[in-house]
Amino acid sequence: MAEKSRYKCCAEPQKVDFTLRETLPSLGSQILNIAGADAHGKGFGVEVLNADNHTWVLSRIAFEFYRRPLQYEEYTVETWISDYGRLLSTRNFTLTDSKGEMLGAAVSQWAMIDMEKRTAVDLSWVGREHQEAMVEEPSPVERPRKVRNVTPTITTTHKIVYSDIDFNRHVNTMRYFDMMIDMLPLEVLEGDFKYRFDIHFLRESRYGQTLEVGCEMREGAALFEIKTNEEVVAVRAAIEWYK
Amino acid sequence: MAEKSRYKCCAEPQKVDFTLRETLPSLGSQILNIAGADAHGKGFGVEVLNADNHTWVLSRIAFEFYRRPLQYEEYTVETWISDYGRLLSTRNFTLTDSKGEMLGAAVSQWAMIDMEKRTAVDLSWVGREHQEAMVEEPSPVERPRKVRNVTPTITTTHKIVYSDIDFNRHVNTMRYFDMMIDMLPLEVLEGDFKYRFDIHFLRESRYGQTLEVGCEMREGAALFEIKTNEEVVAVRAAIEWYK
Repeated sequence: MAEKSRYKCCAEPQKVDFTLRETLPSLGSQILNIAGADAHGKGFGVEVLNADNHTWVLSRIAFEFYRRPLQYEEYTVETWISDYGRLLSTRNFTLTDSKGEMLGAAVSQWAMIDMEKRTAVDLSWVGREHQEAMVEEPSPVERPRKVRNVTPTITTTHKIVYSDIDFNRHVNTMRYFDMMIDMLPLEVLEGDFKYRFDIHFLRESRYGQTLEVGCEMREGAALFEIKTNEEVVAVRAAIEWYK
Repeated sequence: MAEKSRYKCCAEPQKVDFTLRETLPSLGSQILNIAGADAHGKGFGVEVLNADNHTWVLSRIAFEFYRRPLQYEEYTVETWISDYGRLLSTRNFTLTDSKGEMLGAAVSQWAMIDMEKRTAVDLSWVGREHQEAMVEEPSPVERPRKVRNVTPTITTTHKIVYSDIDFNRHVNTMRYFDMMIDMLPLEVLEGDFKYRFDIHFLRESRYGQTLEVGCEMREGAALFEIKTNEEVVAVRAAIEWYK
């Protein structure tokens, strides 16, 4: 049985917005980069899997942020894998400030796919082989909720360009995050809110495609549906904000 | 007289593209983040200047990249200030790999502005007060060239959104870089080229404005002119690639 991994972070100036607090997309990036670094350090990162034509794909993630770190504030991200199902493994995160106060938390669920067949791989063997990497502690917040029935009231289009794509030629997770955040009224981002995000990645989207980003505004929440030009849903998500 | 500052960097997976080499925008970000961190560490970072209502503004930068670092490759960035003029200070950078081969270099020129009056501040006092931070070594590559007479053959528009802006509510330097890189044919970015960029920042652009990004394609080069919707030129730049 493993221990949680701890990473020290700092809200450097390039990560903050005009409220001088780290942006939500930057916090999301930080979390995902740590997921990659931790898997790499433990021997099951993408570059090891790639040798077998396999890769990790983020299927769902839920983030909660209670307070955004101030410019130059240091905080700690802890991460651990709590379980491997047959199709999804669960990686958890907590963000705490120097006083031990929880700034945020996240639960991510990852599938392993065969890059040639584009199908999911049974994860049971990873659970057996990397048993020692698991930590028996439940997820710190509710796992990603399903998002259904989005009826967009505002829509923008986005042509996928070079800076949107990752090493897989697919749109980078964080760029989807940016596209959704950018549709929110500025008051939601500059106010002193707490936030919860639930994001489902349903299909990949590729360089040259045009995305349709639909947003349904509600009271204290926004639902999103991102489609590729073939009318296929790539991402569904919900963002809630509250005092 | 100071020594150059040295920073260790690594081309982590989130920085690479599908060629598994660090992207040009990521290298550019790295350089600018180091400029900020180094000024901060030496006591003349933006947060110190802000107390006097002053801030650093990047006026011009030239980057040269000869080889992009491979995924997980470690490299060293050295930076030093070579001189303070009355209006511009010059900060230089070299990027070298573990064998001491030069991967790239950059020369940046910064103005200090009064944030209320929006005018340039005479830098002579900084040169006197921070004399000990200067290194008497010339810039490693030619200083930023002027770019004039851009006649766009392709134009795109870009509405400025939250994720484009920095702590100043202005478009982040690196987002301009992305906008220009994204207009290049993919072959220019995936090929084994060397690159030189010259970028001039003429005016700031703000949240809610719409930018017109014009590109004039030439043989082995592209010129850019980015205008705000008031027909004001915000940025002019040139990118050259060669074997």
